[in-house]
Amino acid sequence: MTRPRVVIIGGGFGGLAAAKRLARAEVDVVVIDRTNHHLFQPLLYQVANTSLAPSDISAPIRFVLRRQRNTTVLLGDVTAIDRAARTVTVRDHAEPIGYDHLIVAAGARHSYFGRDEWEPHAPGLKTLEDALQMRRRLLTAFEAAEWERDAGRQRALTTIVVVGGGATGVELAGTIPEFARAALRPDFRTFDAGGARVVLVEGGDRLLPAFPTEISARVRRDLERLGVEVRLQTRVTEVTADGVRLGDEWLAARTVFWAAGNQASPLGRALGAECDAQGRVVVRPDLSLPGDPSVSVVGDLARVDWTDGRLVPGVCPAAVQMGAHAAANVRARLAGRSPAPFVYWNKGELATIGRNRAVAVFPFLRVTGRPAWFLWLFVHILYLVGFRNRLSVLLQWGYAYLTFQRGVRLITAGEGGR
Amino acid sequence: MTRPRVVIIGGGFGGLAAAKRLARAEVDVVVIDRTNHHLFQPLLYQVANTSLAPSDISAPIRFVLRRQRNTTVLLGDVTAIDRAARTVTVRDHAEPIGYDHLIVAAGARHSYFGRDEWEPHAPGLKTLEDALQMRRRLLTAFEAAEWERDAGRQRALTTIVVVGGGATGVELAGTIPEFARAALRPDFRTFDAGGARVVLVEGGDRLLPAFPTEISARVRRDLERLGVEVRLQTRVTEVTADGVRLGDEWLAARTVFWAAGNQASPLGRALGAECDAQGRVVVRPDLSLPGDPSVSVVGDLARVDWTDGRLVPGVCPAAVQMGAHAAANVRARLAGRSPAPFVYWNKGELATIGRNRAVAVFPFLRVTGRPAWFLWLFVHILYLVGFRNRLSVLLQWGYAYLTFQRGVRLITAGEGGR
Repeated sequence: MTRPRVVIIGGGFGGLAAAKRLARAEVDVVVIDRTNHHLFQPLLYQVANTSLAPSDISAPIRFVLRRQRNTTVLLGDVTAIDRAARTVTVRDHAEPIGYDHLIVAAGARHSYFGRDEWEPHAPGLKTLEDALQMRRRLLTAFEAAEWERDAGRQRALTTIVVVGGGATGVELAGTIPEFARAALRPDFRTFDAGGARVVLVEGGDRLLPAFPTEISARVRRDLERLGVEVRLQTRVTEVTADGVRLGDEWLAARTVFWAAGNQASPLGRALGAECDAQGRVVVRPDLSLPGDPSVSVVGDLARVDWTDGRLVPGVCPAAVQMGAHAAANVRARLAGRSPAPFVYWNKGELATIGRNRAVAVFPFLRVTGRPAWFLWLFVHILYLVGFRNRLSVLLQWGYAYLTFQRGVRLITAGEGGR
Repeated sequence: MTRPRVVIIGGGFGGLAAAKRLARAEVDVVVIDRTNHHLFQPLLYQVANTSLAPSDISAPIRFVLRRQRNTTVLLGDVTAIDRAARTVTVRDHAEPIGYDHLIVAAGARHSYFGRDEWEPHAPGLKTLEDALQMRRRLLTAFEAAEWERDAGRQRALTTIVVVGGGATGVELAGTIPEFARAALRPDFRTFDAGGARVVLVEGGDRLLPAFPTEISARVRRDLERLGVEVRLQTRVTEVTADGVRLGDEWLAARTVFWAAGNQASPLGRALGAECDAQGRVVVRPDLSLPGDPSVSVVGDLARVDWTDGRLVPGVCPAAVQMGAHAAANVRARLAGRSPAPFVYWNKGELATIGRNRAVAVFPFLRVTGRPAWFLWLFVHILYLVGFRNRLSVLLQWGYAYLTFQRGVRLITAGEGGR
């Protein structure tokens, strides 16, 4: 007798949590992902800023799930979902894969607000390739500055613009000035690498909009002390290879990073279900598709109501909870029970701002400064997948903390540059 | 008063040793390299086989030389050398760089014996990009095998051919069977990943031709015990995306690695000096160019006589010694002394064959088995550039040794594949 097959699209936090929850279920699980690795996205900016190596924050999905004998992991790019036939189609594979239950956890990419022509000049930060491209751009710009004799062009080469004042933008911008002063300055001869200019641009009226207002003000002060120029209520109106236009002001900058706005995976629309403007699939309270209980959508791809008119935020704990919940509902249905509605358990928000500074907001507690920074460290190490990664990351952070140096200043060739 | 300028092309072992030897000389040193990093080439195969991360075996050249205030490091690709004008031209930079002394340490690439059309199907192992491409191919072939239902095609996907029985080929081939059995087997469901077939092909009549004959026989036995098929006196007559032809026999194999033959950098010929068939520059005993004492050639690019009609081998210690010697001769000439001839100090040969086995041959001593393996470990850790790298590599090797797992099984996109 063949057992029911649960297909999970995506090996991120949502997909992995779903697969793990099905470890001892009487089902066959198939996890399909476009990459071979699970990625610890909250630390991705530390690959971009040369603090960590790609392998420190990622692990092969099949390695993470290797003890789960009912689970097969396949590397592939899902291009179509046929809900009538209950199959998914994978690029370069003629035969579709059938499912009895489908959990779609395909995540989101950055959104350029309809200006996709900006993407080549301002990479976002969702995949390892993105982070490696950012690292390559940052380092290559400084290398070019060492050749340059014109002060204006040197200035443009060492100006870094980060677009977006959410957690990713704040964390990325906050680490660059110290990196330039402590690690890069001693290495360059023809210009002052420590004088690199870092500009953080946010369209709204405060940083970290998911945090309380007082925290936003404090974070801004902290960033400015670190040497970051913070521009609030500033819209990016143009991005080219040479810089950005902020409102009417032209800012010459070789390096522009994009950390603003999300656009959910096109697989949401491929489901043929109702999606919101960001491409998120409107799901029922139990995370299933309206009218099709065999399909659930979890993580950044799902639009789920929370409280006070707010949505469940696009953060890792939410994706983990949704993935596990969708899997639990599959088990409930197989056991003849009815699926339960999803309830989001808010574990709080954490963001770090450079060395020794962070903010943490829990439902009944706020922590800032160095205690929050150590908390941030502890939580991130704790959740890093795999024992080896934790040790390696601790070692590299310890080294960076004590010496102010960075470990991974490699420029390797790739699709996006030299 | 401007000081004499010494330009060094290449930041490998030869170039770096030359730069360091000029640290306290009354000269300006300019080091030009196509990459931003010095690479510990002897461990490059450990990036290809997923044991180490790229950043474990490399360090930014400017970081290594940051305390040397008379030295500037430039990222650039030297395209021409004008000995009459005493300048070098760098790609994308209009103005040439003048020199008073030039040390060319541009190294070698793999040679396909005139069959350059094989290169896309059988990557060599000289740069980090090469190693990442090898890693990607190896892992992608196993991922494809997990999809495959035809036993013959699955066999071809999990057959790995290593061409060349020198140290690189032996070290690379020797680690793959254990990797497949211990790390990959538990992770795959549709086939036995531990049954991967590894074939080592050598055109000559023994492995490790630089070692004594008895050692070659022992290494062959060791490799065969590990599960490597060794084919001696076997010529590769064709390489395609689907496999290799060995003499008349067709061997279906998705993964072919090239570790045979060297071709020196084209900069040798660009010097307009006499080169041998492998492109190595024939230098005077003091490593300078015949008729042009302002130019020295060191490392794999130099053809230097040693003893008994043999040449100085293309190994790291030789490159280090040559680089330091050429720099010492520059200092001698500046001080009005005459340059000294180069004398190679043979420190012995070392090669490892999988876990716990290695061979070491010194002028008056031979070590094999586990003691040689620990010696190999010790020497390679000792010479790894940078404190952090040593610790990180020790940690990763310790992890791999105790758990049989590998840390860096990432497939990241690049020029050569998905």
